[in-house]
Amino acid sequence: MSELVLEDRHKTLPDHALDQLFRGARTFYTWEDKDVSDTTIQALYDLLKYGPTSANNSPARFIFLKGAAKERLRPFLIPSNIDKTMSAPVTAIVAWDWEFHEKVPQLFPHDPGAKEWFASDEARKANGVRNGTLQGAYLILAARALGLDCGPMSGFDAAKVDEEFFASDPKMKHWRSNFLVNIGYGTTEKLFPRLPRLAFDEAARILK
Amino acid sequence: MSELVLEDRHKTLPDHALDQLFRGARTFYTWEDKDVSDTTIQALYDLLKYGPTSANNSPARFIFLKGAAKERLRPFLIPSNIDKTMSAPVTAIVAWDWEFHEKVPQLFPHDPGAKEWFASDEARKANGVRNGTLQGAYLILAARALGLDCGPMSGFDAAKVDEEFFASDPKMKHWRSNFLVNIGYGTTEKLFPRLPRLAFDEAARILK
Repeated sequence: MSELVLEDRHKTLPDHALDQLFRGARTFYTWEDKDVSDTTIQALYDLLKYGPTSANNSPARFIFLKGAAKERLRPFLIPSNIDKTMSAPVTAIVAWDWEFHEKVPQLFPHDPGAKEWFASDEARKANGVRNGTLQGAYLILAARALGLDCGPMSGFDAAKVDEEFFASDPKMKHWRSNFLVNIGYGTTEKLFPRLPRLAFDEAARILK
Repeated sequence: MSELVLEDRHKTLPDHALDQLFRGARTFYTWEDKDVSDTTIQALYDLLKYGPTSANNSPARFIFLKGAAKERLRPFLIPSNIDKTMSAPVTAIVAWDWEFHEKVPQLFPHDPGAKEWFASDEARKANGVRNGTLQGAYLILAARALGLDCGPMSGFDAAKVDEEFFASDPKMKHWRSNFLVNIGYGTTEKLFPRLPRLAFDEAARILK
């Protein structure tokens, strides 16, 4: 599959898929007592990794916390995020690697100069945040495509999470946390009513 | 649909959908001479708008450029982005609104204090960029779900694009461009071979 271009791609997906990904998808706060297997986490990565990034730079890094490891996160969550996180089968720390440019020669092999596009601190920050955040959205939608529910959150102390999970590991010490995503099979007890969205004319323009 | 929770959501989408969204999807550089209708652009917005953002703050703004309006973008593109952009049926400027917090009372009506979470410049920048970028990824995947191909790009002069498109319009003067996405029905002449992705162990960890 990965070397081919999908011939049959210029068709709208079935309504059920659009509902599962977007129209009927919701942010969940309570969860079935049902594991998300390591195999499913690997399958999730194997979808989201194909989402596009600038020069394929793929700066996002993902820590999937299960069981006891989630307790390490608890002290750094705002109070309203604790229960929903501690009860989720998996919580992903969506991070990005400040040193992502070191892997650009591997990821963009036909242009040996591409690493230099990300040489400056300014370029690394802008590209790491932008592309790492895109990849976080790919994670949310890939999870929904696999029949999982998500609860993304940004209410936590990122600097302390970096210190707890990344600082002491030579391979992770340049990783920076961006946001969190609870992942599992949601239940509806604390579900918000669907909140309003901006009308097209409030958020968009078509110029000709 | 929008008020309901999809009961039948805990199933993996069919392989064809996973291919169209992720595994077989590619970044395109050349395009069929085929319009993307205004109706399709509206349908694209009506999917992507449902993607989750922090407190539903929905900071992204989208300018869809067609025909002569695309010429206004040309001077601000890096040379390697000109041909693919000028030949695309639509180019979207994915922007975010520096004043997005003004719409939070409308978007998060049950908590009148939520607007204050985004009162500081620092909170507005971090949340505008993070959530506006998530919404840009939702646009890419919603486009693919509708059978469209995309070519996202960050090689352009954002400050000059803001000046050209936003500065003189009272309703858009606080919008800030983030990245661009060519949208249409791609052709395969200049398609890259599928580039490698990081292995799970290079980009992720499972901690228990």
